[in-house]
Amino acid sequence: MTLQTEFRNAMAQLGSAVSVITTDGPAGKFGFTASAVCSVTDQPPTLLVCMNRNSFAHEHFKRNGTLCVNVLSSDHQVLSGVFANASLRSEERFGHDNWQVLSSGAPVLSSAVACFDCLIADCHEVGSHSVFYCQVQAIRTSEQPRGLVWFNRRYHAIGHDVEA
Amino acid sequence: MTLQTEFRNAMAQLGSAVSVITTDGPAGKFGFTASAVCSVTDQPPTLLVCMNRNSFAHEHFKRNGTLCVNVLSSDHQVLSGVFANASLRSEERFGHDNWQVLSSGAPVLSSAVACFDCLIADCHEVGSHSVFYCQVQAIRTSEQPRGLVWFNRRYHAIGHDVEA
Repeated sequence: MTLQTEFRNAMAQLGSAVSVITTDGPAGKFGFTASAVCSVTDQPPTLLVCMNRNSFAHEHFKRNGTLCVNVLSSDHQVLSGVFANASLRSEERFGHDNWQVLSSGAPVLSSAVACFDCLIADCHEVGSHSVFYCQVQAIRTSEQPRGLVWFNRRYHAIGHDVEA
Repeated sequence: MTLQTEFRNAMAQLGSAVSVITTDGPAGKFGFTASAVCSVTDQPPTLLVCMNRNSFAHEHFKRNGTLCVNVLSSDHQVLSGVFANASLRSEERFGHDNWQVLSSGAPVLSSAVACFDCLIADCHEVGSHSVFYCQVQAIRTSEQPRGLVWFNRRYHAIGHDVEA
């Protein structure tokens, strides 16, 4: 087994929240499912999102210069699949569920666990991916969060009954 | 509520795996608990770790130039607390559980869900934090992964009975 394959298998064992990353602006409206999102600093409020540069939407995110991280809940498994499905056009994807806007104009998922509406402040290219450093402009959260986690190549619901 | 406080509250709703990040080398042996870890690219296998630059161990990680990400299992809640406890010295922390070494010399947790032994390839400073870009040199995984997730300011076990 190559180190690359070993890496992908081992990374499947690092649980992560599932988000839909969206943008809108001069380059158009796009969205994709992502699990590589993390908090960087709260001075100023900044998060990062990793995105494959081979993704058709990559340049559109860069051109718009904005994105919203919509953190999915345990009710959003179907939506996660919709935004991961390369055969669906942008309009078809956003036909699912309800969307609003906050500050940047990027689509904000009404039923998300949390939404971080951002300006893309910097972009760092590493191998096949870009790391977008995003300054948070506006935030929306849900009152009763129940999260969706991708772990061991399956979805897991958290915040329900069974906890550690 | 300031945007900074709002950001911290909303980030609590982005579930994340819990890891202990370790190093060893000329600057000494150190470890801390982290949740801001994510996969970047598999070409070459690369992950990133965010670390507060005010942490006493920050410069030691940079000087050693190596780190190991030890992904914790649902049995590691106590260990997570040990490596997050600023009043414990390094020797006291590593007195818990069993540790080995792989390629870099950084401590590798025998009972971890997955271990990524890395060279720190690059460091990007953003606000109060550093983002370490780490090239993976060696990997160890567990056969029956049960993960530990930090969500809504509590631990959650995943990979057990109840799943979405």
